[in-house]
Amino acid sequence: MAESRANHTVSVSGWAAHDSSGKITPYSFKRRQNGVNDVTIKILYCGICHTDLHCAKNEWGITMYPVVPGHEIIGEVTKVGTNVKGFMEGDRVGVGCLAASCLECHHCKTDQENYCQDLQFVYNGIFWDGTITYGGYSQIFVADYRYVVHIPASLPMDAAAPLLCAGITVFSPLKEHDLVATAGKRIGVVGLGGLGHIAVKFGKAFGHHVTVISTSPSKEPEAKQRLGADHFILSSNPKQLQAARRSMDFILDTVSAEHSLLPILELLKVNGTLFLVGAPDKPLQLPAFPLIFGKRSVKGGIIGGIKETQEMLEVCAKYNITSDIELITPDKINEAMERLAKNDVRYRFVIDIANAVTSNNN
Amino acid sequence: MAESRANHTVSVSGWAAHDSSGKITPYSFKRRQNGVNDVTIKILYCGICHTDLHCAKNEWGITMYPVVPGHEIIGEVTKVGTNVKGFMEGDRVGVGCLAASCLECHHCKTDQENYCQDLQFVYNGIFWDGTITYGGYSQIFVADYRYVVHIPASLPMDAAAPLLCAGITVFSPLKEHDLVATAGKRIGVVGLGGLGHIAVKFGKAFGHHVTVISTSPSKEPEAKQRLGADHFILSSNPKQLQAARRSMDFILDTVSAEHSLLPILELLKVNGTLFLVGAPDKPLQLPAFPLIFGKRSVKGGIIGGIKETQEMLEVCAKYNITSDIELITPDKINEAMERLAKNDVRYRFVIDIANAVTSNNN
Repeated sequence: MAESRANHTVSVSGWAAHDSSGKITPYSFKRRQNGVNDVTIKILYCGICHTDLHCAKNEWGITMYPVVPGHEIIGEVTKVGTNVKGFMEGDRVGVGCLAASCLECHHCKTDQENYCQDLQFVYNGIFWDGTITYGGYSQIFVADYRYVVHIPASLPMDAAAPLLCAGITVFSPLKEHDLVATAGKRIGVVGLGGLGHIAVKFGKAFGHHVTVISTSPSKEPEAKQRLGADHFILSSNPKQLQAARRSMDFILDTVSAEHSLLPILELLKVNGTLFLVGAPDKPLQLPAFPLIFGKRSVKGGIIGGIKETQEMLEVCAKYNITSDIELITPDKINEAMERLAKNDVRYRFVIDIANAVTSNNN
Repeated sequence: MAESRANHTVSVSGWAAHDSSGKITPYSFKRRQNGVNDVTIKILYCGICHTDLHCAKNEWGITMYPVVPGHEIIGEVTKVGTNVKGFMEGDRVGVGCLAASCLECHHCKTDQENYCQDLQFVYNGIFWDGTITYGGYSQIFVADYRYVVHIPASLPMDAAAPLLCAGITVFSPLKEHDLVATAGKRIGVVGLGGLGHIAVKFGKAFGHHVTVISTSPSKEPEAKQRLGADHFILSSNPKQLQAARRSMDFILDTVSAEHSLLPILELLKVNGTLFLVGAPDKPLQLPAFPLIFGKRSVKGGIIGGIKETQEMLEVCAKYNITSDIELITPDKINEAMERLAKNDVRYRFVIDIANAVTSNNN
């Protein structure tokens, strides 16, 4: 399926998983030379998304090994192609999940490249030239400029990295449901992880009453004191669930483990929406009655378009929103992934790529 | 729970189920005298909805026996209370699923009584006076006028009866998604029964491209030739499903049996909506990926408000839309229910209540 090309001559040091053990080891590979529409980026930071873990271990059965994960990429532009508009050498830039799309369909033409049928991801995808894409666990990235965003000057580059996937994933549904510009709604956030904690920050910044719904009692002080949530519901507590019945306008469900939608749906007002951004690999149980009797909706969505990602970053700069992160050196990726698998991270690991020399000497 | 009241003095002949066998037998009972807000209706026709069958057999575990089913009621006004507005003796009127609501909540005040938390149904409900409600399988009905609609003169009363539940159930989602006033969309109808066949008629009348999706090959000529559908997809045929992938704006799912949502969701365009009006008693399997990758929605809804039901009837008059029915005498109710359980009806049984003498002599 994938091919190598004569113009793939740029040697890159990176980190890859080679089989379903998911173990990440140093890996040298080639990227394409900077094309007319490309920018080359010296990667400084890359977030570790839960998707990286799924893909490294081939949990969705679609991994093409070796896989270089990473789609929360931040760095500095070092080369600019002749057709590139809006980027210069030295710019602080970010690349999220998207590497390519058809550029011609309705979705591409209306800034929804993320719903293009020919969408290709920045890793484990097939680029226009037929080569497999390699992600941000590496020192150099070559990106078509149409999938690159600017990182506002006020945002720290390490803590901003997770905004490129986790941030836009929760921002886009809030925007779509008019929860960015309009305040005063009651919103719920299911799961307090990499996505959920940014969703709480957005919800509070945009003036909403925010309730965190979690299976873990230890998340209550985290939610309220650290992140400023207004309310916390332990999802195993029927009394708390009952007390909040029909109280929320919108719930963002960030949980990718299997879980019951019934108690969550009942928290929604009539006409309320449950928006799924976690992607459980097995089907969820959807009870029809709470949908029907409450005229409720269950929706889903994946990240956002490039223009919307840029907008999200400006909003983050305005409200001073970044991810809470644990910064690690590349030699700690496996340890971080093990902890991530146990949800033992507050709230996102970010790899300090520039600080990579030791790890490659391991 | 339920009480009898001193003013329940009106003797009524009807038909009731007395246990979970669901067998319907003649049953005499009392209704309230016509109150200041009531109209008394001589019932002429009553449709047999699938809900009647579920309830007669206590399949949802909530039946209060004896139960007099029937919520597709059409007849003539014979008495009018002093506070009643808009109805006169002799008026052709209909009563659907709603017997009472709180009249004070946001939903009641915005013509969405159907989503009031204190909603009570016309049978197997608890009316304001604490009595159990008895439905339209009976010769006389007493209804609060705020839950009564006028039947346009051009509509035949027998074939209009199913509009009071089946009709409004499919009309309301079409209206909500701007598919009544705006033509030219591609819509799907899953299941070609009492609800589905009216949905096809609406879809064509409103100028849409209508595809029927069914498990039954025999429904293809029915859908196309009898009802004018543009296209038919056999839901067990992967090739047909694949060919229609991402082609529909809106799908109305009328099936109350368990079924897979995955192939149906894939038929929707990005941003498309699957609207559930059937109510399977077990949870449906909801795969997250087609929601997420296609930004699709699954919604639900129940009937419509009274104002919207009246509007639906005017629209039906305008387009000459009624249900296809098989008219039966009351002594054939059990036989009809047996056939309904096997979906052996084109497309709705309607009881000719006025032609009831023989059956009560059985």
